Amino acid sequence: MSSDASPIAIPSLPSQTLSSAPSPSPTPSETLAVAPEHLDIDLVLVFDAKSAAVEKEPPAAIEDALRHTLSLLATAGFECIVRVNRPGSVFIFVKASDAVLSVASYQSQVRDWLMGVRTTAPSPPISSTSDSQVFTVSERLRLVYHRLTAPEKDHGLGITPGEGDWLFISSIFAPHDPAFDVAWIKRWSTKYVLDDDELQLIRDVFGEKIALYFAFLQYYFKWLLFPSIAGIVAHFFFSPFSPIFAIVNSVWCCVFSEAWKRHEVELAVKWGVKGCSSLHAMRATFRGETERENPVTGEKEQYYPSWKRVMKQFTAIPTALVAGILLMALQGVVFVIEIFLAEIYDGPLKQYLVFLPTALLATLVPTFTAFYSIVVTKMTNWENHVTAHAYETSLTQKMFVLNFLTSYMGLFLSSYVYLPFGHLIEPNIDFITATVQKFVGEKATQSKTFTINTLRLRQQYIYFTATAQAINFFVETLLPYIQRRLFKEAKKLSNKVTGAHAFVFNDNPTESAFLTRVRAEAEFPEYEVDEDYREMIVQFGYLSLFSTVWPLAPLFSFINNWVELRGDAVKICLDTKRPIPSKAESIGAWLHNLTFLTWLGSLTTSSLVSLYRNSSTTLESGILVSTRPWMLLTTILLSEHVYFAVRYLIAIIFNALESPVVQRDRREKFVSRQAMLDTKSSSGEVLEKKVEITEEKRELWRARIGQAVEVYKSSLQVKTEAEKKEE
Amino acid sequence: MSSDASPIAIPSLPSQTLSSAPSPSPTPSETLAVAPEHLDIDLVLVFDAKSAAVEKEPPAAIEDALRHTLSLLATAGFECIVRVNRPGSVFIFVKASDAVLSVASYQSQVRDWLMGVRTTAPSPPISSTSDSQVFTVSERLRLVYHRLTAPEKDHGLGITPGEGDWLFISSIFAPHDPAFDVAWIKRWSTKYVLDDDELQLIRDVFGEKIALYFAFLQYYFKWLLFPSIAGIVAHFFFSPFSPIFAIVNSVWCCVFSEAWKRHEVELAVKWGVKGCSSLHAMRATFRGETERENPVTGEKEQYYPSWKRVMKQFTAIPTALVAGILLMALQGVVFVIEIFLAEIYDGPLKQYLVFLPTALLATLVPTFTAFYSIVVTKMTNWENHVTAHAYETSLTQKMFVLNFLTSYMGLFLSSYVYLPFGHLIEPNIDFITATVQKFVGEKATQSKTFTINTLRLRQQYIYFTATAQAINFFVETLLPYIQRRLFKEAKKLSNKVTGAHAFVFNDNPTESAFLTRVRAEAEFPEYEVDEDYREMIVQFGYLSLFSTVWPLAPLFSFINNWVELRGDAVKICLDTKRPIPSKAESIGAWLHNLTFLTWLGSLTTSSLVSLYRNSSTTLESGILVSTRPWMLLTTILLSEHVYFAVRYLIAIIFNALESPVVQRDRREKFVSRQAMLDTKSSSGEVLEKKVEITEEKRELWRARIGQAVEVYKSSLQVKTEAEKKEE
Repeated sequence: MSSDASPIAIPSLPSQTLSSAPSPSPTPSETLAVAPEHLDIDLVLVFDAKSAAVEKEPPAAIEDALRHTLSLLATAGFECIVRVNRPGSVFIFVKASDAVLSVASYQSQVRDWLMGVRTTAPSPPISSTSDSQVFTVSERLRLVYHRLTAPEKDHGLGITPGEGDWLFISSIFAPHDPAFDVAWIKRWSTKYVLDDDELQLIRDVFGEKIALYFAFLQYYFKWLLFPSIAGIVAHFFFSPFSPIFAIVNSVWCCVFSEAWKRHEVELAVKWGVKGCSSLHAMRATFRGETERENPVTGEKEQYYPSWKRVMKQFTAIPTALVAGILLMALQGVVFVIEIFLAEIYDGPLKQYLVFLPTALLATLVPTFTAFYSIVVTKMTNWENHVTAHAYETSLTQKMFVLNFLTSYMGLFLSSYVYLPFGHLIEPNIDFITATVQKFVGEKATQSKTFTINTLRLRQQYIYFTATAQAINFFVETLLPYIQRRLFKEAKKLSNKVTGAHAFVFNDNPTESAFLTRVRAEAEFPEYEVDEDYREMIVQFGYLSLFSTVWPLAPLFSFINNWVELRGDAVKICLDTKRPIPSKAESIGAWLHNLTFLTWLGSLTTSSLVSLYRNSSTTLESGILVSTRPWMLLTTILLSEHVYFAVRYLIAIIFNALESPVVQRDRREKFVSRQAMLDTKSSSGEVLEKKVEITEEKRELWRARIGQAVEVYKSSLQVKTEAEKKEE
Repeated sequence: MSSDASPIAIPSLPSQTLSSAPSPSPTPSETLAVAPEHLDIDLVLVFDAKSAAVEKEPPAAIEDALRHTLSLLATAGFECIVRVNRPGSVFIFVKASDAVLSVASYQSQVRDWLMGVRTTAPSPPISSTSDSQVFTVSERLRLVYHRLTAPEKDHGLGITPGEGDWLFISSIFAPHDPAFDVAWIKRWSTKYVLDDDELQLIRDVFGEKIALYFAFLQYYFKWLLFPSIAGIVAHFFFSPFSPIFAIVNSVWCCVFSEAWKRHEVELAVKWGVKGCSSLHAMRATFRGETERENPVTGEKEQYYPSWKRVMKQFTAIPTALVAGILLMALQGVVFVIEIFLAEIYDGPLKQYLVFLPTALLATLVPTFTAFYSIVVTKMTNWENHVTAHAYETSLTQKMFVLNFLTSYMGLFLSSYVYLPFGHLIEPNIDFITATVQKFVGEKATQSKTFTINTLRLRQQYIYFTATAQAINFFVETLLPYIQRRLFKEAKKLSNKVTGAHAFVFNDNPTESAFLTRVRAEAEFPEYEVDEDYREMIVQFGYLSLFSTVWPLAPLFSFINNWVELRGDAVKICLDTKRPIPSKAESIGAWLHNLTFLTWLGSLTTSSLVSLYRNSSTTLESGILVSTRPWMLLTTILLSEHVYFAVRYLIAIIFNALESPVVQRDRREKFVSRQAMLDTKSSSGEVLEKKVEITEEKRELWRARIGQAVEVYKSSLQVKTEAEKKEE
């Protein structure tokens, strides 16, 4: 408030560094134009006294909290640098010493080993002060983050931003590395195909979880080439709703999902994260009902009975059902209104009213989704999951029900309601118009005839798979870019005019650029890899469920995903906080959804083909669909069981042909077990030789064997009673 | 031939024992009437020079072979006793010394450890000559059998009866222990329920494979109580083809098969055989195409590419298809003849001709099955499986196709052909009779009317589930018993008259009873546990597929299985060779068949209910089934998907509630890994404490923390440009 406070804004001093501080070392990137001033740090803790939760605290308490935090970090061996973020908020930059890292790394290896993720028992670091081990960026960040946030029993400091005693810490994040980011995106934008080295790089920098997403996207992208080509052929040479393309597409979906399941395991083995899902740390908000000894590790732990959680999870079924019915009703009503306005209604305000359905959907569906999201988040909290992984899986699955309905409901309505039953409107059109006229008055409807828009399904589908993807790309990637540019300009402009929001900092000039960047990044949203999975799986659903409607859809998805791969890289670098690396061995719940959509595809594809294959010939009679119900059902039944058979066969084949990567893993385990054996004994072979055979013994044996042969000879003389009597 | 040969029949001499021979020690069983003279031995090798393969060999070669065998056994540390079996054949009784056993046991533990079956690395026996370890009977027999028969690289002697160099050895078996057998059966015949101790006892005596069968049978028997009660209620209080009973029965099948899957794992863990299927020894007849290093163990081994085997296995599909079609055609033709003769035909020889269909089936089906069995055995040999386990699984699955058809085809024909379409015969009856008259002449058919035998399905089903089971029990258990009694009498009688087949042996009187018994056992067939599984799974199929036809079926199966449990015990003891103990962790292929039958049950049960629920009301119109096709298909489709949903839910529940047994196993693995860690280091905790904190350092920190707090305070003074300007 008063001007005398400004001198306190101390310049950046090495003395503020708590341990043997590395001087803020700018790491100039030689190859790049961007050369940010970069403090040599691992993570940033945002200390914020202005957040809602703690604003009422007395200043002394706030300062004590900061002191306590810094003292804890210093005791744990972290070097800390404190810098101003904004009024009432500072950054605590932390850097782990080599000693801290090597201990954390050993502890992590021990955890891996105890839960069977590692093949060999780790050796403790020979000397924690000797020259440092080499860690990848992602390993380093993961270890430091674990050390800071894990509960004490997992060798962490238990810092849980915004929870418990840590309300002053609003977040922990890693600043971006612009040099890497720029190089990465530049390289990708010039490469047509991403090789395994690129995946390895992502793994080394962003960790296995993010790398697995890119691996999936890349794998899916490559596999899309096949249906793209098949689709082009089908589009130009086959009749619409070609059964051949339908079969090819269904089999492709099935093979792809099984192949990914296999590839995922290979990746997990290759990256050494197989089995890591059993390692996830306990959520800070998990509350046990009782305390018990962990049946595996024998440690005391909070415990919440699994059966109670399962019971709670079952309540999700009626919830999803109700939500589904409501959404279906909503979409159904809008659908009816839409058909009515577009095809029948011709009253006043028609030119405006035709936009009503779109407007309704555009406002109601997101509202409904937001509401549902709040409800299921509450429900998932209530389920009281132990690990963040289980929590996310549970939430993902609940949300997927709605994703599914919002994405595909329109197409389902067109396929199974509008087109097959649309002809029922025509005979009842008088009744409909009369009813409407009662409410709206005379002349509301002029078109006394009704014809089905036979292209509706295809138009819708093209919108979803081509137009919407382009729009989505724009919203997701280009728009933020433009926003950033515009905001910058606008901010500059507004700053010039009012200067309302731009703070004036007294930064050390060498750090100024870096701090400005970190201040901006602190406001970025977290990167949600789940959102990106959702997008891809929904896209896969369009292909598996409705591809037969418009065979060019795979091609458009193929193109989209080429861009998507690069767009997601840009998003991670520029639009979100740098993700904290973590391990992952599987795409988890999304794999289930993939399988589910493949299975459902066997039903929809066959039914669509059965319904619409001959529609061009039957159309003349005014009824689009003339397939008899039992024929339709038989087709579906057959198709589904062929799907099961194919999946079963693929499983058999994959089972018989073990992946070399998995084999190598088994080999490693074998060798490690063998090694353990060798330390215990000099193998059993030696034992056998202990049975000593003297010449004396041999002589005895020879005699006895001779006698045994005599027994054999005597057997030749054995006679039956009859023969005896004859003698 | 000449009488001077008889003196050679040497009396049993301890000197014939090759090593430090235990004198033939009769082990009188105190508690039992049966007190057999019993040589203290492990296994019997039957040396047979009269078998077809070697009959032409010169006597010297035969004697050399015997010498070689005995010498090999002696060198390997076995004590051998040779006794006369029949002309040209002797028994080689072998007993392993304690040293041999402890080495074999250690080697077995090493195999277990290397393949991950054991939790902890084994320690070599401290001294192979010290006091003997305690082995269960089954362990002992398994180890000795392995030592004799395994290939050299698995630390065996490579004795493969009837194969390769071992044509003289016709079989290897363990003699029964009559004391145990009698006690066992006596106890079981007085117990209503078999407890876990009994299973443990079977495991200790007959090994895990047999114990698993009894465990399955016992588990299945217990679970049958539920549908039995439901069946009684349904039979007396519900209408026929009650949907409620159908649902209860289907859900029961589903829960049972999932519960067994879980229970099986528990048993495997409890018995320490989890993962043992990777341990099966190489078949003697397996021929590799190339030699390679085993990718896991690194040992040189014969190799046959898996993909070739898979390709070969696929040829089983057309084979089974052709066989299925032929059998279906056969049964279809017989079925038509049967209907015709029973309901329409009234010509000459009717009283004899009605038996024609039964006679046809009774002769043709077994012939066909025998032929099919030869074909698929050849095919399975051709598939060139590495392990006996894989071979058996492959063969079992091929045979199951035919078991399935022969068992259920009659019921399928009645359910889906005769009853729904039988009414089509009536309008065409004139045409049929006319056609027949052309061939057979006038008056061949008298009954000009045709009525469907609406009870046919139920009659058939009752036959299969009640009558046939009783007959089967008679054939399987009582008949052999009677045969034994009769044969004995007949033999005695015939011996008195002709003396043709009874050999006169010069046995040592103390051994005479034992040798007589072993000579008899040598002629017994092997015990085939697969046959017993087949019987149970086929029975389960009757319940899962058609139970709704006659709800009392589960009750009859329940009763049957009470007897079956005891009957199978009797069979093992009295009618077959004592089975060589071996390990098993799962009922294997039968589990697949169980799941398959459960799934198929969801289709048949729903369709039967849909077809026949209202048959009593529709019968008046002459048409038994009036269900519309689309209704039937919808019912099936619904029912199947409900089945999938139920199975999925059960899987989720079972997944969430981990079995304590499995948990204990994980605990053991954890503790063992922890122990390995502790030998490597004195844990990481110590490392952390190395970071030493001096008072000096603390002082420095305090100062720096003070400065950091100043930074925070300065942040409160940060102003926007606007505020600055104001100043």
